[in-house]
Amino acid sequence: MSLNPRNYKLSDRTARMTAHDILPYVDAMPETREFLLKIIDVLLDFVRTTNDRNEKVLEFHHPEDMKKLLDLDLPHRGVTLQQLVEDCATTLKYQVKTGHPHFFNQLSTGLDLVSMAGEWLTATANTNMFTYEIAPVFILMENVVLTKMREIIGWTSGDSILAPGGSISNLYAFLAARHKMFPGYKERGTKALPGELVMFTSDQSHYSIKSCASVGGLGTDNCVMVPSDEHGRMIPRELERLIVERKQKGYVPFFVNATAGTTVLGAFDPIIEIADICKKYGLWLHVDAAWGGGLMLSKKYRHPRLTGIERADSVTWNPHKLMGAIFQCSTIHFKEDGLLISCNQMSAEYLFMTDKQYDISYDTGDKVIQCGRHNDIFKLWLQWRAKGTEGFERQQDRLMDLVQYQVRRIKEQSNLFHLIMEPECVNVSFWYIPKRLRGVPHDASKEKELGKICPIIKSRMMQKGSLMVGYQPDDRRPNFFRSIISSAAVTEKDVDFMLDEIHRLGDDL
Amino acid sequence: MSLNPRNYKLSDRTARMTAHDILPYVDAMPETREFLLKIIDVLLDFVRTTNDRNEKVLEFHHPEDMKKLLDLDLPHRGVTLQQLVEDCATTLKYQVKTGHPHFFNQLSTGLDLVSMAGEWLTATANTNMFTYEIAPVFILMENVVLTKMREIIGWTSGDSILAPGGSISNLYAFLAARHKMFPGYKERGTKALPGELVMFTSDQSHYSIKSCASVGGLGTDNCVMVPSDEHGRMIPRELERLIVERKQKGYVPFFVNATAGTTVLGAFDPIIEIADICKKYGLWLHVDAAWGGGLMLSKKYRHPRLTGIERADSVTWNPHKLMGAIFQCSTIHFKEDGLLISCNQMSAEYLFMTDKQYDISYDTGDKVIQCGRHNDIFKLWLQWRAKGTEGFERQQDRLMDLVQYQVRRIKEQSNLFHLIMEPECVNVSFWYIPKRLRGVPHDASKEKELGKICPIIKSRMMQKGSLMVGYQPDDRRPNFFRSIISSAAVTEKDVDFMLDEIHRLGDDL
Repeated sequence: MSLNPRNYKLSDRTARMTAHDILPYVDAMPETREFLLKIIDVLLDFVRTTNDRNEKVLEFHHPEDMKKLLDLDLPHRGVTLQQLVEDCATTLKYQVKTGHPHFFNQLSTGLDLVSMAGEWLTATANTNMFTYEIAPVFILMENVVLTKMREIIGWTSGDSILAPGGSISNLYAFLAARHKMFPGYKERGTKALPGELVMFTSDQSHYSIKSCASVGGLGTDNCVMVPSDEHGRMIPRELERLIVERKQKGYVPFFVNATAGTTVLGAFDPIIEIADICKKYGLWLHVDAAWGGGLMLSKKYRHPRLTGIERADSVTWNPHKLMGAIFQCSTIHFKEDGLLISCNQMSAEYLFMTDKQYDISYDTGDKVIQCGRHNDIFKLWLQWRAKGTEGFERQQDRLMDLVQYQVRRIKEQSNLFHLIMEPECVNVSFWYIPKRLRGVPHDASKEKELGKICPIIKSRMMQKGSLMVGYQPDDRRPNFFRSIISSAAVTEKDVDFMLDEIHRLGDDL
Repeated sequence: MSLNPRNYKLSDRTARMTAHDILPYVDAMPETREFLLKIIDVLLDFVRTTNDRNEKVLEFHHPEDMKKLLDLDLPHRGVTLQQLVEDCATTLKYQVKTGHPHFFNQLSTGLDLVSMAGEWLTATANTNMFTYEIAPVFILMENVVLTKMREIIGWTSGDSILAPGGSISNLYAFLAARHKMFPGYKERGTKALPGELVMFTSDQSHYSIKSCASVGGLGTDNCVMVPSDEHGRMIPRELERLIVERKQKGYVPFFVNATAGTTVLGAFDPIIEIADICKKYGLWLHVDAAWGGGLMLSKKYRHPRLTGIERADSVTWNPHKLMGAIFQCSTIHFKEDGLLISCNQMSAEYLFMTDKQYDISYDTGDKVIQCGRHNDIFKLWLQWRAKGTEGFERQQDRLMDLVQYQVRRIKEQSNLFHLIMEPECVNVSFWYIPKRLRGVPHDASKEKELGKICPIIKSRMMQKGSLMVGYQPDDRRPNFFRSIISSAAVTEKDVDFMLDEIHRLGDDL
């Protein structure tokens, strides 16, 4: 059986060694090589099983049971190289295959092998992105890729940075907006403000926007939730009404977040109308396109979803989502150059000296709140080289086409499935209808029943290991399924499998 | 020559393919395998050259020249697999070898091959740490490793999380402290405060502490810099004086950061005296041991440097520094359990449902400001298995012994080198004395001259590619060298090489 730890045997001599014997010395290179290649055997087997539809998506065990299956102990003395190889196999044996074609559970799915190879290289280069001095090629790659992404947004200048996830990217936008509009705030805090700041976002937006209000010191009460319509899109006239209302109460509106691709429904807020309101009241417009940003690459699907995004002051866009880069790869872009450094620079001259021999404008350390920063660019750069811009476009179109297929299949089986709305993105929201509820008129009490069976079906699919699809409630309805197609491995057959398998698992409920 | 792109030839058939042809389909597995193994060839050659003292540490080119040497273009159509392999070789050819035994430039150095293999696996598993559901084994590993680290700190309970770098770890501490002391702040912002908050840190501390004041909305004016003594350690009576002074002015002191291992001098603030002051005035004590934390693993060096750290309310500790884990691996620990979730939870029920089939106390997503979180645990867990706790201890002792050796060699060559102070950590601060200044009495004007030559020697070593050692000024003196020994690959010979090479490069200046 694959990923069975006993299948990965080192030679006797190497097997008994410990890391101390081989590393990091050159003269032990044959054993080092043997050890590392054996680990690669394990990884390639994982890749193979990930792409094998006959393999399970996961082998589920409850935490307490899983602990008994694993030896996670941190020993006093190091274990042998053989044990380390087996540890790797065991770990992957019980890991969920997020790249399996039957994994529809998360916004980030898939296993792009070029991006993965890029991340292997990143680990081996083991550097830090804060200066050109120690990451010259990677820093230049960042410039190339981020410039290209700003062009795709529709900007000819500006500045950008990679951040550890969309939430931190959104935080960068919040900080830059506050700094731009109230430059005294950085040093003097609330004393530099004309009043209590308020920000606006839709009630469907990602919770990291609200988190900015907490982290940044406004308090979450000052993150105003703007109602959304039945498709999950922010209602612009509600936004304007709330801005006016807060202004009248003496608050200082400064920041509006429009979401391009909400987490649950995949909705796109109407950017142009929101941009008009921001312009009218002098507010910063941030577009959180962490999820939907990839569709900017598609001529077919960019409009109307992302029309007007070039009017934003800042844009979050996560290549680890629709573009399939290895997790984690998130970007934040600013229309105005110079803001990142002006906002975040703490002038640590002892770290970022100005008398270096090279052009220090390439150093990024002073632009970020992180200091040390992981190299998240190489995996994306290599992937872009491999696919080309047109390859990315084709992939976006393919994902959306598959979603259209899924919608069609759901409608064709309307006795078994209830489509909640036409999707704008690759999120599809639906209920499964078990035997006893078929033919029953759709109303609130039926929705309640349909919601109750979601966790049961989910539990069954995890126990069986055959499928992963997420569910959640929202403020309009109880639990419902939300499937995601963001993996290049998925085909029409897999979409059929998803629906058929839910039917098999839930028919009797 | 190694890492020459032309040395890595795929078979003719595979070479002409593009990523689209082979991925992610199982039936093309032989070509996929050939492609990935060729990338591994490149990586193993990089590992070999990194450990080869006859190889350069770097091949320096100015940014504009480097751009001409590279093809960083993002094409419209994807390139061939052969081109991708060559791209990888070219990238590493021009990358600085941060694991080379002659790289003394950064706090994070070295290339631990077990940790590297762990990071390869992480890339292949490609998951997200926010739920047990999709990262079961890794979540359990986090629990095991973080519990162990808290034990080493000296706590029997508490809570911890991995964060993307020490700066974000410090931000977590700041946020938790504010939340604990002013629980209304999260919702109501400054209205919930009894007055303007102030925090305290030494003038030698990492700039991320000051950054907390900016990000968190206090304003950097409210981050009070406490003077340090000539060794770079915070002066406790100055801390107390400043606390009293701010209180008298009506401010609300709430947070003190003590640094265990400062960035430049490697100084350890006196934790016990600072803890006494925090207790007296009811302030949160955070210890930023991002850098020096590794020495907690050493019976020989833990005391007196980190004595009293168990009295802290929170501790930052970066295994990617002295412990040599692959970058990035940073941890933040809290004495009190429950604070992380209470502080950071935004109650996004649509993401972190409470009706799951398993014990959701294992889900971490609601504890963090990140939402999606990279798997930074596996590389550390595997490394810990490989070394054992005693292996880590031995490594810390070895690094400190090498530093003692370096200090002795500097003192033995006092005509050539001037030791600025006895090191407490693996940072060694010194000047090189060129021929024309030997025998000249040491005074401020000589220091100025010695400072001027640091950037020139640094530029020469980078041009030659033979060595990397950092320099910087501080508030007491102009530029001086600060070498770091944090790589397990360094030996006494390499220390001699560092000093000899600086002599060769700077004699005539």
